[in-house]
Amino acid sequence: MHHIRFRDPSGTVRQGTLDDDTVAFGGQQYDRDAVDVLPPCEPTKIVCVGRNYADHAAERDADVPDRPLLFLKPPNAVAAPESTVTLPAGKERIDWEAEFAVVIDEQCRHVAEADALDVVRGYTCLNDLSNRDDQDREQNWVRGKAFDNAAPLGPVVATPDEVPDDAAIELRVNGETKQAATIDQFYFSVSALIAEITEYMTLEPGDVISTGTPAGVGALADGDHVEVEIEGIGTLEHDVEIPDAG
Amino acid sequence: MHHIRFRDPSGTVRQGTLDDDTVAFGGQQYDRDAVDVLPPCEPTKIVCVGRNYADHAAERDADVPDRPLLFLKPPNAVAAPESTVTLPAGKERIDWEAEFAVVIDEQCRHVAEADALDVVRGYTCLNDLSNRDDQDREQNWVRGKAFDNAAPLGPVVATPDEVPDDAAIELRVNGETKQAATIDQFYFSVSALIAEITEYMTLEPGDVISTGTPAGVGALADGDHVEVEIEGIGTLEHDVEIPDAG
Repeated sequence: MHHIRFRDPSGTVRQGTLDDDTVAFGGQQYDRDAVDVLPPCEPTKIVCVGRNYADHAAERDADVPDRPLLFLKPPNAVAAPESTVTLPAGKERIDWEAEFAVVIDEQCRHVAEADALDVVRGYTCLNDLSNRDDQDREQNWVRGKAFDNAAPLGPVVATPDEVPDDAAIELRVNGETKQAATIDQFYFSVSALIAEITEYMTLEPGDVISTGTPAGVGALADGDHVEVEIEGIGTLEHDVEIPDAG
Repeated sequence: MHHIRFRDPSGTVRQGTLDDDTVAFGGQQYDRDAVDVLPPCEPTKIVCVGRNYADHAAERDADVPDRPLLFLKPPNAVAAPESTVTLPAGKERIDWEAEFAVVIDEQCRHVAEADALDVVRGYTCLNDLSNRDDQDREQNWVRGKAFDNAAPLGPVVATPDEVPDDAAIELRVNGETKQAATIDQFYFSVSALIAEITEYMTLEPGDVISTGTPAGVGALADGDHVEVEIEGIGTLEHDVEIPDAG
């Protein structure tokens, strides 16, 4: 099943389902194009993982760490599917990073790796937009990773049965494929990540764990159209606007 | 004025005022001891600042950075005043860090330094609990700074008129003074911090900026009683529990 969050024609926010191009909630059906698609969940935090594919670690001249490299994106980072995402002005390089994102279903802490999939609502697509100008200069990646719109998210939460263990993940910019991998290349599994993170912090319903990006990152330009497609989930699309530096 | 958030005798959460030891809301008054005091706001994120007093930077063998060193604490880090705060087990060193915290009053972005105090609701006390075992080993201070209960917060939000520009900040452990400074020693002012942070991200009502800690940090032990007192605000108190490593 594909869960979708949307604003119906009256403006009310709904949690419904998406089947082909039909959105359904409470006995009513809408064409997907007739509703505003919203981010599929409302995380209190996004816990991101760096260098979880060896090939991306290599392209960033970094080793795969001995335990997950974690960083945070706060709620202001979330951007809607099919939106135009305005990025910080005046930066040399803001990169795309296609990621497979885990949506948590229940408040949880100290989750054992063997039980970790029990707390998963499903999976979605995330573009971990990365402002390298600042990321490469700061201890904690706040300006680099936590800016407004740094996490386009969606379009749906696919229940785990929809997503194969070796799902393909692909990112295209203006129709050209830039990243292509499968999620069985993770260095740390979804279960291992949930166990590690909940050793330190409580996860809430709707919180997101983003599992890192494969090789092929690169810089966005004003006007770019980005698609992040994951097998079994669908395609997160957004446009990019980079204002002139003031 | 001192704003206090509390659960009244019926269990309902209220935003009231505190005057001496009397809590007031909606024409009703309560003894402070008769209500559960809650964190005075509900941040979607806490943006913290490292090394904002030169003497603390020196004791951590670090320079004061050329722009604010930022890091994040998510909502799971917030702990209530007068609570017992359970810390991660099995760590060698989890430190106290008394901080002067700014509470934001309105959604804002791209705030000019000259206008920054207009978006401030008031000020409160924060203990930036810091798990040095992990902080010193990780790129982003997530295990180090974002664990559950890493930000005891409160007890009230004092409006700006209550707090002198050179307010004294003091931290005591079991009654013994460990940190004592004044907030006119900041390297980056509250206004400069708001301008810098909102260049990158939107702040929401109730969001918190924590302005760094002075010299005198040290390790907490199981059973410690901590007080963070700031002139014009009051005293944030909490107890510490450190479970045996499993």
